[in-house]
Amino acid sequence: MELNREDLIDYATGATFLGTGGGGDPYIGRLMLQQEFDEGRRADIIDPMDLPDDALVITAAGIGAPTVMIEKIPCMIAAEQAVRAVEDRLGRKADAIISIEAGGANGTLPLVVAARMGLPVVDADGMGRAFPELHMVTFSVYGCKSAPLSLASERGDLMSIETESNVLAERLARSAVINLGAMAQIALYPMSGADVKRTAVPNTLTLSLRIGQTISAARASKQCPFTALIDFFAQANPPRHARILYDGKVSDVLRETQGGFARGAVTLVPIEGDDEPCRITFQNEFLTAEKAGRTLTMVPDLITILDRETGEPITTEALRFGQRVKVMAVGVPPIMRTPEALATFGPRAFGFDMDFVAVEDLPLDGLAPAAARSPAHAD
Amino acid sequence: MELNREDLIDYATGATFLGTGGGGDPYIGRLMLQQEFDEGRRADIIDPMDLPDDALVITAAGIGAPTVMIEKIPCMIAAEQAVRAVEDRLGRKADAIISIEAGGANGTLPLVVAARMGLPVVDADGMGRAFPELHMVTFSVYGCKSAPLSLASERGDLMSIETESNVLAERLARSAVINLGAMAQIALYPMSGADVKRTAVPNTLTLSLRIGQTISAARASKQCPFTALIDFFAQANPPRHARILYDGKVSDVLRETQGGFARGAVTLVPIEGDDEPCRITFQNEFLTAEKAGRTLTMVPDLITILDRETGEPITTEALRFGQRVKVMAVGVPPIMRTPEALATFGPRAFGFDMDFVAVEDLPLDGLAPAAARSPAHAD
Repeated sequence: MELNREDLIDYATGATFLGTGGGGDPYIGRLMLQQEFDEGRRADIIDPMDLPDDALVITAAGIGAPTVMIEKIPCMIAAEQAVRAVEDRLGRKADAIISIEAGGANGTLPLVVAARMGLPVVDADGMGRAFPELHMVTFSVYGCKSAPLSLASERGDLMSIETESNVLAERLARSAVINLGAMAQIALYPMSGADVKRTAVPNTLTLSLRIGQTISAARASKQCPFTALIDFFAQANPPRHARILYDGKVSDVLRETQGGFARGAVTLVPIEGDDEPCRITFQNEFLTAEKAGRTLTMVPDLITILDRETGEPITTEALRFGQRVKVMAVGVPPIMRTPEALATFGPRAFGFDMDFVAVEDLPLDGLAPAAARSPAHAD
Repeated sequence: MELNREDLIDYATGATFLGTGGGGDPYIGRLMLQQEFDEGRRADIIDPMDLPDDALVITAAGIGAPTVMIEKIPCMIAAEQAVRAVEDRLGRKADAIISIEAGGANGTLPLVVAARMGLPVVDADGMGRAFPELHMVTFSVYGCKSAPLSLASERGDLMSIETESNVLAERLARSAVINLGAMAQIALYPMSGADVKRTAVPNTLTLSLRIGQTISAARASKQCPFTALIDFFAQANPPRHARILYDGKVSDVLRETQGGFARGAVTLVPIEGDDEPCRITFQNEFLTAEKAGRTLTMVPDLITILDRETGEPITTEALRFGQRVKVMAVGVPPIMRTPEALATFGPRAFGFDMDFVAVEDLPLDGLAPAAARSPAHAD
């Protein structure tokens, strides 16, 4: 895959789409990446299948609350320091960087880290979207360890974690991030090339770029960006189901920065007419959409809120009263829907008392309340 | 200093006394130490003045809530692992182990770690008592860094912290400990021999032994252990003021394990007569004693609750309704009462809105309420 300076806006739009409201706005990362390009550095993007089996691939990411990242800009010196610390623990230099999540800020930031370190980035990630916790990745689902993990702050604080449990690593890192001001840089999941081929969701950086290009091309040719997106996903390989869940305006946003996460719910009402309101819950990312108590889509399938005219995806922290939007759902690839994957990031993993039903199998008016009981977040 | 198997009970009694209710019961550490002695291992105790200036001395300690340590026995394999991790970061082996606090479990545990590692223990510590937080030590007050710091759990989880701020190191370690079940082993404050001579409170392991010997000798000869203790402290070099603050029985204990600490207050009432109740607050350790709203003693001076017949010191987690006790206060050495020391562990550091007054300068009926307002813990 080729990513040029002129692709960056489309790429960031696609990353925001895959961010499903969370993962932080890729805007800052895009500006940083533009600067890297302008200064003559760039990260080559390589296909996961081209990785030697014994390559060392390290995951680089920002960690924290997206609500905080707006004001506290990710520190790339810290990101590099975190990667170097993992290399030091392993006594070996990384051959490539991989994104933990293609969606949101972590779609762009690893490209900046890689450009600064002169390393390529793998065209893949651990979810093909964004998720709030470090163990919610296919890397973990299919047996890779997040440790040795290093976490660095913009003030030079460095923390390293070694544990067999990816869930404990998440807890230790999360409570550290809270003490470091709810935003830090992290390096983790050191994997072999063979691990990446086996566990990663492939070609998700390409996917980001194509999503962004689909939206901007539709806009340029006065086509409907939503129809264009639905067609684009239908023609993907394998095809992915996409549908519009709701068309309306934002009537309420409940948003808290709690336990290092941005948690809350957004309520949408029809622009005209008397449709029932739509309620979308989030923990950094959108988790469920429901209308009249019936579930329209659920995690890990993608839920994205987009401007109803331009098709521009909107992050949770940018949601405002009165915005006119459409809500789109997109099915995730099979690697994200296996029983072990759903145990890690299906609805129950987020405290919803319901079993996963794929968006393409859900009735258009949603799943009856009996099957979709209210969330009981366990924090 | 010579510490033999037959000294261990006295030594542990003295460590409990200096623990001022907290620091965890040294009982478990004493049993572990007995076993080390029985297996032919022992830690030589060396005078700090005999340390070469360029020696590497590492602090070993248990960290967590004493209430939890009763059931979750400190893991000495983890303690050794933590020390090794600090050695690895420094690229150098330790020449000696030092206790962070002579009071409580951390009076005995470092001796076990040292015996296992074949290292001597320095006859000194960072406070000559026990304190709840890692930066509340003379090492930190007089300029030593707690990092590189390593923390290990009984399950093999390892965390390393590097930061310039000893307060941030405490926060990061504390939130990690909470996630590791409120008890872990830690190695920190790697210091030179010169640092130890400059910043440590000297000969506090000897002090523990002498306190325990004073109590048991008085008991054996049917003398009053309290009179014996007051005489012992008066004859110390420099002399230390000790007094009985209260004679009564436990009428109430409020105890919570909160934020990784055991917090609360114990109320004492007279056994007979109509004296006012005495209230003693604690955060792991006893912080203040007051009667009728007047402050009788305050941190960092020692407050210890002892069995009124045997003179046996009682830890906060062992306090029970109906226990008949005497409360004793002992002044701390000058190194613990400088302005910089009081800024770190004086009454205000624990949220009490009052300036430190040494126990020997306090009226016997305490300081008027105006000067000693209610505590406002900042957690």
